[in-house]
Amino acid sequence: MSARPAAWVFVGDLGELRLGPGDAHHLSRVLRLRAGEDVGASDGAGRWRLCLVTSVGGGDVRLEPAGPVVADEAPQPPLSVGFSLVKGDRPELVVQKLTELGVDRIVPLAAARSVVRWDAERAARGVGRFRQVAREAAMQARRTRLPEVSPVTSLAAAAKALGDQGALCEQGGDEPPSLRRPALLVGPEGGWDPEELACGLPVVGLGPTTLRAETAAIAAAVLLCGLRGRTVQEAAGITRSK
Amino acid sequence: MSARPAAWVFVGDLGELRLGPGDAHHLSRVLRLRAGEDVGASDGAGRWRLCLVTSVGGGDVRLEPAGPVVADEAPQPPLSVGFSLVKGDRPELVVQKLTELGVDRIVPLAAARSVVRWDAERAARGVGRFRQVAREAAMQARRTRLPEVSPVTSLAAAAKALGDQGALCEQGGDEPPSLRRPALLVGPEGGWDPEELACGLPVVGLGPTTLRAETAAIAAAVLLCGLRGRTVQEAAGITRSK
Repeated sequence: MSARPAAWVFVGDLGELRLGPGDAHHLSRVLRLRAGEDVGASDGAGRWRLCLVTSVGGGDVRLEPAGPVVADEAPQPPLSVGFSLVKGDRPELVVQKLTELGVDRIVPLAAARSVVRWDAERAARGVGRFRQVAREAAMQARRTRLPEVSPVTSLAAAAKALGDQGALCEQGGDEPPSLRRPALLVGPEGGWDPEELACGLPVVGLGPTTLRAETAAIAAAVLLCGLRGRTVQEAAGITRSK
Repeated sequence: MSARPAAWVFVGDLGELRLGPGDAHHLSRVLRLRAGEDVGASDGAGRWRLCLVTSVGGGDVRLEPAGPVVADEAPQPPLSVGFSLVKGDRPELVVQKLTELGVDRIVPLAAARSVVRWDAERAARGVGRFRQVAREAAMQARRTRLPEVSPVTSLAAAAKALGDQGALCEQGGDEPPSLRRPALLVGPEGGWDPEELACGLPVVGLGPTTLRAETAAIAAAVLLCGLRGRTVQEAAGITRSK
């Protein structure tokens, strides 16, 4: 990882290395790159190559390859975190943090007690914005894989799709987080409603404190990514105090 | 924890139960409490009692005791997280999340590569604001202990004060987080400078991804609190890939 250059972009084709206007602006105006400097270009699907800036100007930044295409192995298992929509810009904060931390799939949930209700048009706009936030965060974090941002879904639909990969998060939950359940779904501030709790998924606890919805989603991502990256290990066989 | 009422305030004296105007406003206007409803009142030092609202009006909320004073045992070991000052409202976000997660001491750091430089007056104002944010987050999280927010300090001074309790966080750090080093200090976006890295503290890694400074501070808190609450356990003896 340390060999990756600080500047990072996503391109459609690692042979052509064509930048969109937003990315060219980012490299030239925000990062102030000049000809001769290094950039990492990734296809967002696990492959990247070292590039050199050849010219900057007229709103465009041109790159040429300066290294072979490198394929990153996908870390296993893929990790998913679902979070219930809340008001304001906290959902974008969640998407940004989950992306930085390395979550593979981000699932916006319309929970029964979600304060926010989005109609179809607003949901499409919201998910589009989440994808943009995820792309920017992945550039910042120099990821080679863009996370998938799912359409807004109900807990019932998410639970069905996840099957035995999924678990709900709830304060005082019975089980510790585990890679055997690599998809954690975090409820809204008021918690899951009884019908949702009866969806068939086991309930995982994230710790003894009362967390805001967005903090719980970030904590779920830190713990899952920490388990996968072996920064910590599973609390197997430990009975936790409530 | 589940026996704690949703509404929570800090008072100077658990016998007198006098509220400040800000807290009275919070209970009456934000939480819209009415006479007869439950409130938890805490002294911020580990003790709390169940109370009843007896009247609301004229900008004041009156409480009477409805239960005995309960003393919470302090969780061991006390956890500290230091974070380097950055621009904008991200330091407040860090203080809010660290408080919710259960950190006991929050240490704002002026690192060599911190983009933000505060003079003494600005630092005093900033720390005052952090203490206010911590108090609000502790109310939201129904903590019985307010975290300590230290004055802004250099890494050298923090390292000296922490001694063998402290560790630096850096991507690719040698050691996993551990309760044997319950004080983690997170550097600025550009990382610690070589002189800081030579301060004598060991270097802990938070995982394989490149995190923004504020995300790293939150991740450090999630992992330390997860270890203390036994949501996860230490990755002892595991060599992590870089």
